[in-house]
Amino acid sequence: MNGNVVVIGAGFGGLQCARSLARTPFEVVLIDRNDYHLFTPLLYQVASSLLNPSDIGYPVRSVFRGVPNVRYRMGDVTRVDLARRLVHPSDGPAESYDRLVIATGASVNFFGQDAIAAASHTLGDLPNALELRNHVLRCFEAASTTADPAARATWLTFVIVGGGPTGVEYAGALAELIRLVAGRDYSTIGRESVRMVLLEGQDELLPAFPVSLGAHARGRLTRFGIDVRVGTRVEGVRDETITLDTGERLDARTLVWAAGVQPSGLVRSLEVAKRQSGRIAVDAYLAVPGCIGVYAIGDAAGCIEGAAELPMLSAPAMQQGRRVARNFLREARGQAPRPFRYRDKGIMATIGRHAGVAKFGRLALRGFPGWVAWLVVHLYFIIGFRNRFAVLSLWAWNYFLHDRPIRFVVRAAPPKT
Amino acid sequence: MNGNVVVIGAGFGGLQCARSLARTPFEVVLIDRNDYHLFTPLLYQVASSLLNPSDIGYPVRSVFRGVPNVRYRMGDVTRVDLARRLVHPSDGPAESYDRLVIATGASVNFFGQDAIAAASHTLGDLPNALELRNHVLRCFEAASTTADPAARATWLTFVIVGGGPTGVEYAGALAELIRLVAGRDYSTIGRESVRMVLLEGQDELLPAFPVSLGAHARGRLTRFGIDVRVGTRVEGVRDETITLDTGERLDARTLVWAAGVQPSGLVRSLEVAKRQSGRIAVDAYLAVPGCIGVYAIGDAAGCIEGAAELPMLSAPAMQQGRRVARNFLREARGQAPRPFRYRDKGIMATIGRHAGVAKFGRLALRGFPGWVAWLVVHLYFIIGFRNRFAVLSLWAWNYFLHDRPIRFVVRAAPPKT
Repeated sequence: MNGNVVVIGAGFGGLQCARSLARTPFEVVLIDRNDYHLFTPLLYQVASSLLNPSDIGYPVRSVFRGVPNVRYRMGDVTRVDLARRLVHPSDGPAESYDRLVIATGASVNFFGQDAIAAASHTLGDLPNALELRNHVLRCFEAASTTADPAARATWLTFVIVGGGPTGVEYAGALAELIRLVAGRDYSTIGRESVRMVLLEGQDELLPAFPVSLGAHARGRLTRFGIDVRVGTRVEGVRDETITLDTGERLDARTLVWAAGVQPSGLVRSLEVAKRQSGRIAVDAYLAVPGCIGVYAIGDAAGCIEGAAELPMLSAPAMQQGRRVARNFLREARGQAPRPFRYRDKGIMATIGRHAGVAKFGRLALRGFPGWVAWLVVHLYFIIGFRNRFAVLSLWAWNYFLHDRPIRFVVRAAPPKT
Repeated sequence: MNGNVVVIGAGFGGLQCARSLARTPFEVVLIDRNDYHLFTPLLYQVASSLLNPSDIGYPVRSVFRGVPNVRYRMGDVTRVDLARRLVHPSDGPAESYDRLVIATGASVNFFGQDAIAAASHTLGDLPNALELRNHVLRCFEAASTTADPAARATWLTFVIVGGGPTGVEYAGALAELIRLVAGRDYSTIGRESVRMVLLEGQDELLPAFPVSLGAHARGRLTRFGIDVRVGTRVEGVRDETITLDTGERLDARTLVWAAGVQPSGLVRSLEVAKRQSGRIAVDAYLAVPGCIGVYAIGDAAGCIEGAAELPMLSAPAMQQGRRVARNFLREARGQAPRPFRYRDKGIMATIGRHAGVAKFGRLALRGFPGWVAWLVVHLYFIIGFRNRFAVLSLWAWNYFLHDRPIRFVVRAAPPKT
């Protein structure tokens, strides 16, 4: 049997695919630049001093410990040779495949605006989330030292661009952090001197949700003291001044970009047919037309269901990873593969303490029920008991004591080779 | 009353001093480059994937929350103007003092060997401990990918220099980590292919302990598979080859330097009388002779008791911080200050699971009792309930399940300003 499977990416889709192939006759190589699977929906909690990296990361090698047919390899895949069926990591030998699963996820999209890219903090991966955490705390330190009121106001202005779940959840968590530290850990910085602005280009927050839930989120965030602007975009950034399309200028040391994602660099570099979104145009079996044995899943795959592409969420990625793996097994048994069908599990977002929005089919939850739904689903899906326990205890700590034990700046030492 | 006190350093000594001055008529400024107090005795556990940074760090601002007379300031003190009584942080305005407490601790000492400094990993602070953690895991990743046996052996050779508590404790923890991952997470890397060497220049490990305890530690580490060499020093490093004073060469990608500490750069730059150790020559009241209102405590102070200087440990630093603060209060009340007397609380080190050595006065503990003593004392002294709880749960996890949940490489993003 032609059993070499290479899976690129250990995110929700790739990890699920490799797990579904564990202890089967396939020889699986799982490649990722990071040796951990990241529970990305909670990255914003790392960025807002609530969780430790190890609470939302899980070592990939531990997942496949004792699984003889799945091998993890640390590496950045820079090139795929579709003709010779070879995957080239940035160092070390190439891996040959009979079947390739592209599960490389998404990266931040600045839509070509380099000045914004250079000035922005992002929430796309663990290093950047940690950098943002350090940065916000440094802003408070700098503001508490400076004597210049204008400089102080610039340090204490936080602009978040993007009113999707990432922007909304980070804004809510940042507001909570600020409520915790302003006037307490930083006794000279009153809450009223901190300014938070959340910008969304479309007419309401959470455009993927029913408009009533977006309006609910906007109301909650406004009550948290956040200046929420819908229908407003960033035009440009220069020095510490952010210009909006309304002509207004905001002087801020912090610009958090949560306004767009795009498929990974590897997908962008592949010469295969793409959707307008940049995602690979896969067929109903998630196969890449014209490339024998090549499949794409998750954020990398532009999978059409009904009229639109499936959203870039963990649920479709995981279901696709499982579908692809099962089809490999069906084919190995001589059975016909089955087309992928997405089972919609709903979407949700949290907005700080006690508030959340969730949509399950026709059911829309908001406020406390939405928050509880969010809590249950997120706890359930975090991999591994240890993380679930640690996350729960930190959440409980935060919830009951209104505190965050992790709020200090951990500088990074440059790696030595 | 002349009440401006500046404390430089939020380590064991400086933090204790500032705490002892909390809610007194003094106006205290506590300056540290890091906004956290670090429980340095457990740094080696962060470096060996056992604990999270937040488990051994505690936000300084939380310690003094609601304390009106103690102000924390983030800063690197580059210069002290003893004539004008001004402390100059690297940025922001200078702080003037009536009383200055120098509690800047120690830094790694390479004894002028620049090549060794450039090649070495250290355990002196949190960034370097995290860097070492990442590095060790990267070594295993690299070894599992390379096809060249010599390169593989070099990746899997770990040389630790220094047989004091830091070197011994890290060696024991690294041996445990390797026992956990070799042959399990890295199924192609057997334990026998990993080489660990611990070098100590003196005739026995743990030179500050009774020789029987050093010999006990050496026996335990040898049984863990560590090649322990006493009476052996590093001559030099070039590329990946470490040369010993015996003429032997070790090819290794990892050199951990735990062989010496020296007072901080600020102490080295101060033009005051020093001991041969480089520590400030303080009098019996921990005052710096000839400098009005200047005191030094902890690793910065060469405090003579009996025939020798007090060791660079947390206990003398904390006792000195308290003594200095109490003398300030005595003087403010018109009372004479009291000279410092060290109350020896004993010394201890752990050597992996179930083994430790401890010396309390004439009582010497080894093996399991030594380990229990170590556990109790360390748990007791970790600041803050949350950390104690988190550390205990991670320790329990590690102890019962022989696992380490934090073993993945968290890359660092460069800070943006």
